[in-house]
Amino acid sequence: MPRRIIIIGSHAAGVDAAASARKTDRTAEITLISKERRVGYSRCGIPFVIGGHIPKMDDLIVYPSAYYKMNKLNLITETTVTHINKDEKTIETLDKTGKTETLPYDSLILATGASPVIPPIKGKEKQGIYVVRTLEDGERIDAAIKAGAKSGIVIGAGLIGLEVAMAFVERGLQTTVVELLPQTLPAMLDMDMAKIVQEKFEEKGVRVITGTGVSEVLGGDKVTGVVAGSEQIPADILVVATGIRVNSELAQEAGCAIGAFRGILTNMRMETTVKDIYAAGDCAEAVSLITHRPVLYQLGTVAVRHGKVAGANAAGGYAVFPGCLGSSTSRLFDVEIGATGLTEALARRHGITPLIGAVTSKTRADYYPGALPIKIKLVFDRESELLVGGQIVGGEEVTQRINALSFAIQKQMTLRELMKADTAYTPPLCETWEPMVFAAETALRKIR
Amino acid sequence: MPRRIIIIGSHAAGVDAAASARKTDRTAEITLISKERRVGYSRCGIPFVIGGHIPKMDDLIVYPSAYYKMNKLNLITETTVTHINKDEKTIETLDKTGKTETLPYDSLILATGASPVIPPIKGKEKQGIYVVRTLEDGERIDAAIKAGAKSGIVIGAGLIGLEVAMAFVERGLQTTVVELLPQTLPAMLDMDMAKIVQEKFEEKGVRVITGTGVSEVLGGDKVTGVVAGSEQIPADILVVATGIRVNSELAQEAGCAIGAFRGILTNMRMETTVKDIYAAGDCAEAVSLITHRPVLYQLGTVAVRHGKVAGANAAGGYAVFPGCLGSSTSRLFDVEIGATGLTEALARRHGITPLIGAVTSKTRADYYPGALPIKIKLVFDRESELLVGGQIVGGEEVTQRINALSFAIQKQMTLRELMKADTAYTPPLCETWEPMVFAAETALRKIR
Repeated sequence: MPRRIIIIGSHAAGVDAAASARKTDRTAEITLISKERRVGYSRCGIPFVIGGHIPKMDDLIVYPSAYYKMNKLNLITETTVTHINKDEKTIETLDKTGKTETLPYDSLILATGASPVIPPIKGKEKQGIYVVRTLEDGERIDAAIKAGAKSGIVIGAGLIGLEVAMAFVERGLQTTVVELLPQTLPAMLDMDMAKIVQEKFEEKGVRVITGTGVSEVLGGDKVTGVVAGSEQIPADILVVATGIRVNSELAQEAGCAIGAFRGILTNMRMETTVKDIYAAGDCAEAVSLITHRPVLYQLGTVAVRHGKVAGANAAGGYAVFPGCLGSSTSRLFDVEIGATGLTEALARRHGITPLIGAVTSKTRADYYPGALPIKIKLVFDRESELLVGGQIVGGEEVTQRINALSFAIQKQMTLRELMKADTAYTPPLCETWEPMVFAAETALRKIR
Repeated sequence: MPRRIIIIGSHAAGVDAAASARKTDRTAEITLISKERRVGYSRCGIPFVIGGHIPKMDDLIVYPSAYYKMNKLNLITETTVTHINKDEKTIETLDKTGKTETLPYDSLILATGASPVIPPIKGKEKQGIYVVRTLEDGERIDAAIKAGAKSGIVIGAGLIGLEVAMAFVERGLQTTVVELLPQTLPAMLDMDMAKIVQEKFEEKGVRVITGTGVSEVLGGDKVTGVVAGSEQIPADILVVATGIRVNSELAQEAGCAIGAFRGILTNMRMETTVKDIYAAGDCAEAVSLITHRPVLYQLGTVAVRHGKVAGANAAGGYAVFPGCLGSSTSRLFDVEIGATGLTEALARRHGITPLIGAVTSKTRADYYPGALPIKIKLVFDRESELLVGGQIVGGEEVTQRINALSFAIQKQMTLRELMKADTAYTPPLCETWEPMVFAAETALRKIR
């Protein structure tokens, strides 16, 4: 009898888990179940559709229905999994017509994702408050702008919040960002680096209010603004991007242990604490390559890697997820922002005494036209001199530098090794002394 | 008495050696001696000035005279060192007025560089044959184009040859490249990757003739064309870019051992085999990080690293050059080309059985407009699964990927480690699965 693999969720983690399971076991019965009508899309693209870079939300569907057929994957959409029976190894489902079903599994993969959280602000039930998670969410925001919205407020200055704020500007809205913490991108950058990002937004006409909570949503039925601190700020639409919370109800009910970040705990094979149940993607905690402790990086890149490992193991193979660094990147207006590993602040929180190397340089040879500024901040562990993090804000060529730093952290490169690294150079694309190397050198000067 | 450090040569290696010596010893007498009138310039920029990207050759002077003053460096230009007396520890110089002088040194750094070689082709003494090494060389080519040249031939399809050919196209010349070896960029790329480069040049109207030598330069006093194979190709100007040969006469005369590539042999501290004489830059061989044997990578990035180590040691410090990978990059028309470590062909020559991972992907998410093709070829050692080389040709984001691969090679990353590397992603700048990771995966499939 073929192995029966059920995957709950069908985006980055779910589909990659299915593909990986199929590669491992050609004959398994693999079923993907999703609440949504449209599946297999890239959430990360939603702000860029709103901003007008990509024609429509449906363009973000990366896996067309042909993909599932080709890989012999059963795809069940608009269906909710209501219960996991771990002893019988079955799940119960409820479809949109109200029909329930019980499906048996040999292996179950939870790729249940996470859901946006709207903080308990007075007036949060009004019309005109949006989140950014699904294609429908994106379409609603787009429709509100098309319907004549002239101004927008984004609560939360994380990557998604800032990407939506940029989209608002691109659509001509007067835009305000309100962030409770004292800086933009608090999970990604240290304050000094975040300042550059904030200045860029202000330069583009966005008002950025940090260190301030929103206490009330104003308006009758419909949003007309918010109260932030002691000030009333008017707006036609309001996007809340203050974070997402793991969809862990099913897992908890089945007895899967939950971690410190409210994610489903997994081991190196992406197994939960319940036999034959795996977790992958935004719902799953996995280990950090630096701290060797569970982390919850809710990123597409992490999701696909989780999925690949969970899928292989669920199908009887053997795969290990070695850990992650939370490498992330974005382009906000004309700057690229990237980070990997620990920030200075996070390093301290983990008991690491940070040694900082930082440099402001240019992206091309001094004499080559079009050179753009780039600022690199490296975080080393002062004791071991190991690289533990990097942050870059620059006009171009940021993302792959983050990948270079990620490789360096993964392979435990030290400050002195990075200082001697061999780098490539040509006047139109970089400087003779690569700024990453130069940044490492500035750190060395502090310990001599 | 202050330490007397003499540096022969004053470009990348020489100036970085001087700067490093100054950092190490604040009181040393540091003297740079150059044959040239203009020094401290970036040779790598010359083709881009010819192509019109940069206004004039003088813009390539990276170190203005103020730099030498600020660092208390004596700069002696238009002066030739005619002899090294290693027993007395003196050098003899000859300036442009015919005056000779004897200068004592405690440490001597040879940054004598290399000179273009014109192969012994019939008619090579004619007017209108140029090389690309000094600012004067660049100015001569520029003047010839301004004087009305309508067509140009470049002999040699290495990086400099192709960069000059691109400049010719940018200046409106009908352009032909003739290469003796069967491919473009033979030192940098394997044949399969070089094909993409050749096609790009052909698409831009350049005729690229490979596997063919030039047997004769045609014309009376002045070049009118060449004979390549059995064919006469007319041209108003001819650039020879078939390689450079180390300026090693002084070193040889002083008894410094010369290596297999005709470079001056050095140890890990950039010492030659003669006491208190160091070598750095295009004239110096140093060890490969992969083969652990001397190599001669004549690159600006290698020169500055050599110089830094030689300068520190010459000034009484202690520094080690750990080896290099020959990482290099360029932008040719609208493609970027980069390489690091060994090509497949070179790996074989070193007794490594290559295991190849290769992928053609895109530089952005599929649905994001403006995505450009990128091809990545990785070379692993089949036995150890260690990464030993990488080549990339793509529309954007190539250089820093080369740096990432360089870091990976330096830290001995294996195929399976690269497959699990943590990478950064955002739709406008890359794919969810980084193509480098994907390329590694294709290699794994071959050993399963």
